[in-house]
Formats: sequence, structure tokens, C-alpha cells
Amino acid sequence: MKRKLLLSDTLRVALLSVLLLLGSAGIDAQSTAPQTASAASVSPVSATQAQRFTLANGMTLIVRPDRRAPTAVHMLWVRVGSIDEVDGTSGVAHVLEHMLFKGTPDLKPGEFSHRIAALGGRENAFTSRDATAYHQQVPAHRIEDVMRLEADRFARNQWPDEEFWRELAVVKEERLQVVEELPRARLFEALKAMAFQASPVRRPIIGWMSDIEAMTPQDVRDFYQRWYVPGNAALVIVGDVDVQQVRAQAEQHFGTLAARAVPPRKPRDEPEQTGPRRLEYRAAVDQSLVVLAYKVPRWTGGDDPANQDALALAVLAAVLDGHSGARLERALVRAVGPGGRRSADSVEAFYGLMGRGPQLFFLSAVPAQGVGTQAVEAALKAELARIARDGISPAELARVKTQWMAAEVFQLDSMFNQARELGNDWINGLDVDAGERLMTALRGVTAAQVQSVAQRYFSERQLNTAVLLPDPDRRAGALAARPIDPAR
Amino acid sequence: MKRKLLLSDTLRVALLSVLLLLGSAGIDAQSTAPQTASAASVSPVSATQAQRFTLANGMTLIVRPDRRAPTAVHMLWVRVGSIDEVDGTSGVAHVLEHMLFKGTPDLKPGEFSHRIAALGGRENAFTSRDATAYHQQVPAHRIEDVMRLEADRFARNQWPDEEFWRELAVVKEERLQVVEELPRARLFEALKAMAFQASPVRRPIIGWMSDIEAMTPQDVRDFYQRWYVPGNAALVIVGDVDVQQVRAQAEQHFGTLAARAVPPRKPRDEPEQTGPRRLEYRAAVDQSLVVLAYKVPRWTGGDDPANQDALALAVLAAVLDGHSGARLERALVRAVGPGGRRSADSVEAFYGLMGRGPQLFFLSAVPAQGVGTQAVEAALKAELARIARDGISPAELARVKTQWMAAEVFQLDSMFNQARELGNDWINGLDVDAGERLMTALRGVTAAQVQSVAQRYFSERQLNTAVLLPDPDRRAGALAARPIDPAR
Repeated sequence: MKRKLLLSDTLRVALLSVLLLLGSAGIDAQSTAPQTASAASVSPVSATQAQRFTLANGMTLIVRPDRRAPTAVHMLWVRVGSIDEVDGTSGVAHVLEHMLFKGTPDLKPGEFSHRIAALGGRENAFTSRDATAYHQQVPAHRIEDVMRLEADRFARNQWPDEEFWRELAVVKEERLQVVEELPRARLFEALKAMAFQASPVRRPIIGWMSDIEAMTPQDVRDFYQRWYVPGNAALVIVGDVDVQQVRAQAEQHFGTLAARAVPPRKPRDEPEQTGPRRLEYRAAVDQSLVVLAYKVPRWTGGDDPANQDALALAVLAAVLDGHSGARLERALVRAVGPGGRRSADSVEAFYGLMGRGPQLFFLSAVPAQGVGTQAVEAALKAELARIARDGISPAELARVKTQWMAAEVFQLDSMFNQARELGNDWINGLDVDAGERLMTALRGVTAAQVQSVAQRYFSERQLNTAVLLPDPDRRAGALAARPIDPAR
Repeated sequence: MKRKLLLSDTLRVALLSVLLLLGSAGIDAQSTAPQTASAASVSPVSATQAQRFTLANGMTLIVRPDRRAPTAVHMLWVRVGSIDEVDGTSGVAHVLEHMLFKGTPDLKPGEFSHRIAALGGRENAFTSRDATAYHQQVPAHRIEDVMRLEADRFARNQWPDEEFWRELAVVKEERLQVVEELPRARLFEALKAMAFQASPVRRPIIGWMSDIEAMTPQDVRDFYQRWYVPGNAALVIVGDVDVQQVRAQAEQHFGTLAARAVPPRKPRDEPEQTGPRRLEYRAAVDQSLVVLAYKVPRWTGGDDPANQDALALAVLAAVLDGHSGARLERALVRAVGPGGRRSADSVEAFYGLMGRGPQLFFLSAVPAQGVGTQAVEAALKAELARIARDGISPAELARVKTQWMAAEVFQLDSMFNQARELGNDWINGLDVDAGERLMTALRGVTAAQVQSVAQRYFSERQLNTAVLLPDPDRRAGALAARPIDPAR
């Protein structure tokens, strides 16, 4: 794929990622309503409710009409990602995603993309921990042409072995670029593999290099046969379309594919963590990095205490790092300490909120020049402790909620983002109103709830710490001059 | 299985485990030759060389005549263990081992064991990281009867689902007893899962509880179909038998089974570790435990530098903890420090030496009353540093070698141990003379080599530390009174 997008964890949750983008783009969060032109021009959320159907063979169809422009997004979701892999073939979901572009009995390698371009369309695909998705944006009257093409490769993907070997080299190169050559990515990879001992979420989405190198065409074909079945897929259409017409077309092109059983999934529950874990990773870097990862619950759409806590944790993450001048930045990056120096050059808080597997609450910081990693660790923990002790202010809470409302409205401005949220909710077993329900639920979070989760989830007992340190044996800059060992 | 033996890592290497047993049994290591009655009465090593054959279907046969008693050991090895599992079905090799006792088209559940008993035999089986083995000891003239029974279940194992569910409950109970209820076992489990991030050696042999609980009859049948093929098995016979007669019988009962391809194996190489890792495990214990695990090479039978280092590491482990009054015990358990107290109540060094996957060099200590875990960690490291700085004495080296020679002779006194060593060598891709070659190679290790490995392999960079600590929330003794959560 030319414009390759391998979804990192930070992109998995549409809502929060949009929020983060807004935060860094400097949206004026002090106003109580969104004031930008694009935000003001869109229709309210409820105007274009999505509808969900089950096709004859068990496949799901989700349609949301959006008639502001004569285009449509076609997004095919398969509920299979790196979480469904087993070791030895980690990364196979992502390799398969690449191979979907390599042909069917009727299409030569690469021809799918040429056809989409000929329709006036743009397209891409991504693989995440939880899902694989293929998406196109085309003039709305071309949507049935896309369906025909997409149903063809979903059901009849086929390629000669030499195409596989060529593409595998591309994937290896991708891993070199997105992991091996980026010490911070390697640090996160090692951290997740330490934080989880049995859960498959411990593995990198792109797979371990040894597994990529040992992958065979048959591994990919087996995975395809196993998981690409109608009952494990959803087609999401957002755009200038008629619901009943789209439904009839989807029934014709997708609903007629042979139904097959969705394979059973193993729970692979994570054993309880009863004490802190820590790793140091030495690499060719100039700057250190400290990452703290705490085990926390996730939002699954219910209203039990764990779900309530998940919502409060989302607010906590936003209070810490949801906007320019949020707590972590103020305390660690801007404030000058007693020694006359700032603690960190940059900081981050991230919480996954949703997902098919367990989630982590991350805090990270790049220590400022002359500041040790332990001091920065302590400073990050001090901000959590401050909220646990003193709570958050009504103004902070209001600011976070205002931003979320703006984000939700912005979300609607992009057909792609709408399709992504709808697909993501389906992947997580949620209904088409989950986005709205989540917004409503988030708006209901109180300052007391935020203080309470800050008190309960951040003990050393569930903490995983990773520290990136300059390696005296490997100078920064030396890496580019040496061949990279792909076996690492 | 009644007398269940799940091989822990410490039992995998026959030679070293015998050595350790000797050490703890208090063999007089100061004499230069073995003096005990049984050691003196056996024939020299070379008198009964084992012979190896390949049967018509690719299965291996190894026979060592030993005519000192009219009995024989029949040991069927399958080169499949927990290292060949993938996550989601961890523990399946071991569950399958249990199910081999549950019938064939001709035998009801449990009847295999009744037949062996009726032959006047004893029997058992074990699953390790690298292998699964089934063994019987019978009067020598009954060996063909055992072959007939063992070939039957190797090729035609079959049982109703209800037998599986009953046995799975037994395996869950086994995991509760050998892991869940033993905080030290849980600590080692967590340590291995941290030390290795991608290699399958990271997983417990018995499997994660979640995987055992989710196991299905089909998982076990699939694993059996996949791995129990003649080319992946070796029959080892040691005893009062005629080689050519045994060979003809084996050809008839095993060699006629249909040949099938041995499945390919993924390398699953471990990414490089570039900094220390550490975990604390809090549990209902009175005493702490500190374990250090360093990544080191293993012996694969070659004579390259890594193999030379592996041999020197084996000597190092024995110098540290190979006999009563060895270095660790002397320095940490017996010696009284400046504060008037001993450092540790017990200490251990262990190095795996051989295996199908990467190995660790372990040091562990139980701190003495009033001694902190950090002090004990430092004391363990100080003993390594002492050898790195000052080397070992000729007397220490001689003592270790003398013990090994005695151990090798003792080994021969047991047909079971002989069969285990021959089978274990085959599992590791070594020839029938590997035991002798290893002894010869170990005898050649110099004090300088031992000092050199002590200098090179024990940096913080490759260190994994696990610390078991009393949990203030879970008093020792409280565990028995509460129901154990099997989902942990």
C-alpha cells in the first residue's frame, strides 16, 4: 500500500484521538460552544442516525446517510486484528491486509486500486489490534461499483506466492521504519509485552520481526480462510446514499456470499498483577523517555462500576493532557522547579477507553536536559497524587466536556471519521448509538468520580514502568551509519 | 495419571539434575573417585554403547543393552512440548499427555495402565518444555507387549468428550497445586514471562489457567494429529534386550505406522534485551525470595565459542551451588556478616545448559530474618563479581569435575535415567554419544574459561530480577482459608 496507515493504539479510538488532535491544534476551549466555521455549519448529531441491518448470510450492514456532499465512504470491517493472532505468526492480520490488494481470480495484483482510482475514488486500509478495515471514498453514485470490487476480494482474494514474497519484503521494511529504527516504538513494544504476560494484546500489531521473517503464503491463506467470513464482517456506508437502495445492493453483492462459521475465540485472560514491573531499554538516543502504564478497566457500554470508572479515567486523562496547558504540561514542562529547571521537555497522558482487550493508562515524559528519569517519574506520579488528594476543579471538568462536544461535532464533518466510529463501535460489540451514549455518559462524569479513580487505580501494584536510556555503546546517530539487524 | 510428574525446568537436563541430587544427598566430593557401593559396581560408560536406527516411516529407534537385570525400560519420546504451543491453547501438550491414557479403539479409558500393571510393569509420563515422554519398566521379555500397546495409543489415541472434561478438571487441579498455591512457582512463572517477550519458552509448561479453562476436546485432537507423527518420535529401549530383535519388533509395531510430514516450526526468536527488567510479586508468604535470571547461551553440541561458554557456565553454576558448602551457601547462608547476621536462609544457582529454546542462568536466595531483598541481591551479585575478579581455585574446579564423573556413573545405575538422557539428547538433535561428549567437553573446561564467562554474561543489561514479597493485604496462612480464584 502506498500511503500506509498502521493504526497505533493512540489512533484506535476515534473520539479520543480527535480530541487529542483538537487539543494540539489549539482549539479555544474556554468558550462554552464550538465557534469555528466548520463546527458551526454542521447539522446536529441526531439528524442522520445510522441504521443497522443483518444480511442473509449473517454479515452486518450499517448505513448513515449524509447528504452534504455527493460522495460516500465505503468501509469494510473485519473483526480480526493482532489480538486474534497466535505467536509464531504474529503480524499475519496485517500482512493479509496488504495481500487483499494483490488480486482475485478476476483482478491482477494492484488492479483493485486502479479500478478505485478510475471511479474517481481514494482508498486505503489499516490493521489495528482489534480490527482490519478497508475504505474508499467515491462519488456517491459509484458506491455499487465499490461494493462489487470489495465483495470480490473479501470472498475470493487470491495471489501467486511470488506476490506474497514481494509484499513480505515491504512489510519487513515497514517494521524497520515504524519500530526498529524508532527507539521509542521499541520501548512501547517492550513495555506492552511486559505489562501483559498472557493476553494477546501484549504483542505488536505489526508482529515480531522473527515471525514476519518466517511467515509463509500458507499462513496468510489459512488466516484469511479462517477469519474472513460474512458473520465476522460489517460494511459501513456513510454518505449521499439512499438507505434502502444501499441495503438492496449490499444484499446482492455481500449477502449472497456463502455463510461460514465464525471461529471460536479463546479468552486468554491476563493473570493478576500483584506488584510493579520495570524495564530499562538502552538505545541510540540523545533523550531519555519515561513511560508509566497502569492497568485499568475499559468501557464496554454498560453502566456497572467498572464502566463508570472507565469514563472517569477518560476525563482524568483529558484533565492531565487533553488541552494546551493541561495539568501535566503546566506542572512538568512549563513550571520551573526549585532548582531553577523545568522537569520535562514533553509529556503525555493516554488512555485507550475501549477495545476488545484490556487497556492501559499511560503517562509519559521526556526529561528536560539535566533532569534524571527518576525525578520525572516522581513528577508524573505527583500529578496523579495531587488529583487523588485535591480533586479537579469545576472549570477543568467543564473544559474537558466542552472539548468533547466540539470533537464530536467535528467528527461529523468527516464521512471517514463517522464510518470509523461506527465501525469501531461494531467491532467492540456496541450499537450504532454508542457514540451518542458515550458522549452522554461522559457528560455525566463528576469531579468526585475523577478524584475517586485517581485514588484507586494508580498504586505501584499495577504499575508497569519503562525507561528509555541513552546507550553508551550505541551513540545516537550511529544507527543510520550501521546496517540494521533485522533479526532483532 | 496417578503419580504425576510435570517436569520443571530444573529437571530437564538429566545430567545436571543428577548432579544436583547428588549434591544435596551429600556425596563426599573430596575424594577423587566415587566410593559408594553402587557407583563402584557398575560397568564403565563405553561398555554398552547405544545404537540408533531409523525405521521405515522415519521414526527413530535407540537401543542400549544393559544386561545387569532382566528388565527393560521402554520410553517413547515425542519432540513436542510447551515450546511448540501457541497462545490461547498453552498447556495442550500436557493435557494431551494425560489423554493418551484414555483409550484407543481397542482400549477403554485407563485400560492401558491396567495392561502395563498386568505385565508386571511400572509406568508414567511427563511433559516438559521441549518434549513429551511415556515410559514403562517391565520384565525384559515383555518389551514387545509394551511396544504393541504404546504403538496403538501413539497412532490411534481416541476418547469420548466426557473423558476429556473429566481429565481437564484434573489438570486444573494440578495447576492449582503446582502453581497457583505456590507463590514461588508463580514468581518463576512471571519471571520467565517477563524475561522472554517473543520466545515461546516464556509460557508455563502447564499453560495459563485461562487457556486450560478454555481448552476443548478439538484443541487436543488437533494437536495430537499435528505432532504425533512417526518422524517426530523416538523410541528408546534400555535393558536386557537383544538389539536386532528389538529392532525387528520396533519395525513391526512402530515402523509400519503411516508416515506423515512433521509440521514446520517457527523460530520465534527473542528480540535483544538491552536493559534490566524487574518485577515484584506480592503474595501470601512469610519469607521473601529474590531471583536473578541472566540470558546466556546454551550447549548445542558444537565447539564454537558460544558452546564453549555454555560449558564454562555449567561449571560456574556448579562452583556456586554444586555441592554442600559451595560458594553461595558459604558466603550467604553460613557466613555471618559485619552486622552479626547471615544474609540468606537458602540459596540456589541453576543453569539449564541444553534445550530447544534459549536458556537462563538463575541465582536465587531467601533472605534471612531481618535482611532486605536488596542486600541479598547485592550479595548474590558480589559472588559473581568475586569470580569475575579473582577466578576459581584449581581445587574447586577439580571438585566439580569429580562430582560430574560420579554423577555420570550413577546415571548408568538407572535404566530410566539412561533412557532419559538418550531421549533428551535426541530431542535436542544430538547423537547417542552426546552424553560422553558432553562429559569430555566439561572435563576440558579451564578455570580461566569460568572466570571469563563470569566477566562477560552478568551485566545488568541482560538481567531479569523477580522479587517475591509478603503482601500486606494477604497474610500467609490466609490463603488456605479462602477459596482460590482459578481465573488468576
